Amino acid sequence: MTSIPVRHIASRDNPDYRAWLRLAQGRPGRRDARVILEGEHLCRAWLEHKGPPPVLVVGESALSLDWVGPIWQACAQGRRVVLQNNLAAVLSQVEHGPAVFFIVEAPAPTLPERITAGCLWLDRVQDPGNLGTLLRTAAAAGLRQAYLSDGCASAWSPKVLRSGQGAHFALEIHEHADLPALTGRLDIPLAATTLERAELLYLKDLRQPCVWLFGNEGQGVADELMARADWRVHIPQSTAVESLNVAAAAAVCLFEQRRQQLVAAVRERTARRRQG
Amino acid sequence: MTSIPVRHIASRDNPDYRAWLRLAQGRPGRRDARVILEGEHLCRAWLEHKGPPPVLVVGESALSLDWVGPIWQACAQGRRVVLQNNLAAVLSQVEHGPAVFFIVEAPAPTLPERITAGCLWLDRVQDPGNLGTLLRTAAAAGLRQAYLSDGCASAWSPKVLRSGQGAHFALEIHEHADLPALTGRLDIPLAATTLERAELLYLKDLRQPCVWLFGNEGQGVADELMARADWRVHIPQSTAVESLNVAAAAAVCLFEQRRQQLVAAVRERTARRRQG
Repeated sequence: MTSIPVRHIASRDNPDYRAWLRLAQGRPGRRDARVILEGEHLCRAWLEHKGPPPVLVVGESALSLDWVGPIWQACAQGRRVVLQNNLAAVLSQVEHGPAVFFIVEAPAPTLPERITAGCLWLDRVQDPGNLGTLLRTAAAAGLRQAYLSDGCASAWSPKVLRSGQGAHFALEIHEHADLPALTGRLDIPLAATTLERAELLYLKDLRQPCVWLFGNEGQGVADELMARADWRVHIPQSTAVESLNVAAAAAVCLFEQRRQQLVAAVRERTARRRQG
Repeated sequence: MTSIPVRHIASRDNPDYRAWLRLAQGRPGRRDARVILEGEHLCRAWLEHKGPPPVLVVGESALSLDWVGPIWQACAQGRRVVLQNNLAAVLSQVEHGPAVFFIVEAPAPTLPERITAGCLWLDRVQDPGNLGTLLRTAAAAGLRQAYLSDGCASAWSPKVLRSGQGAHFALEIHEHADLPALTGRLDIPLAATTLERAELLYLKDLRQPCVWLFGNEGQGVADELMARADWRVHIPQSTAVESLNVAAAAAVCLFEQRRQQLVAAVRERTARRRQG
């Protein structure tokens, strides 16, 4: 692929390799804020949203793959590392995955002074699959920010990245957010699902943006936070099961809002045309 | 709790215990169609829907728990087994979970001659968390049957049971279903999400029941099946991510149908009142 010599790692004792392995296993070293992205989808999403990564790591066998060529070319020469196959296989968290990795810094967005755009708040969502799916759903619904309390799974861990499917790069993700304190910055309503004193989701006017708040898988939203909700809605479900999974509930709410907003936009456009 | 002696297992070599352990680890012995249910929620759900289990297994320490008393009483005497604590801890797949298990037979429903009620069809959904969430969402949306193709995760495996949260007992689950062949039994439309030649979900009239078909996490629905879909709908999502998680997409579709059906029912009731 290139005749210029690149850095090659062949020892499992290499300190860089050991640090990457800790990242891949979801137990980064203290003060190591880096993140490992694995596979075509996540690496491409990073390239698209953030540009070339600080470090590209490719397993020997993956070098010859068609889709790796453009990624290799997109990365500066001194930032490319080739990994011996057996080390790459250990680093990979995906079965039979082609071993291509970016080592990057997790973005650290600054908190806005005021919260004016629709966004997602998560209170102690522990399951990595749920958290990744929630981020993916929020991005698909057009939200741009997510605020995660302490007690949420680590957003940039390999499992959450995998289930996020690129949503991490479409969203500003604020981890360790003090949600009760952030209610003081809200210029839009705080919405939560609950059974007590709640309006039917489908009867609620959701056209204006709001903050969608979802909570822990077992315990839901903390009482302190729920007490501050401006909109309390419930999803009319069968009694056959006790509740919906938190990511499924969020999908229902976020896309009901999107539906109402789309319908309103179509109506407005039609009305304007009639007037014009 | 009882003065009548009960069966007590204290050896890891006990053949029953070894078989249960295989069930708990998701690798049942050949021709063993039994299922292990762990914990208060699943055991209670079984009791409620199916009655007393063939075998109740309780760890020594769990015997004194308040909620175990009624479950213990609900099971026939010869069907109760007490497990030494260290064996119960190994059998448990839940961290710090109280060791209470039912050993039951997975229900094997017979295929209906004609499919006339709204239901869920899944084509090779591989992830146990997704499969469990899909079943839970279907039950919450009021569906009563699920048909799972070969290549789906095993519906009665511990992980799928955990994420199903009791949905398994509210649904008839047909595993290893030959979905292409079953299209011949359909008296209602087959609906699938796709981007090609699809109507906007929110503009589609979904008031009549349909079969909701969802496919593999990476590949979607097999072409052969997609070609037979009567309703082709798409969910209007932002381009920030490529797609929704399959369980999130199902939540959006199933609850949009539920919304339309609820709105229609309210309108009909109102119209009737006006006439009366």
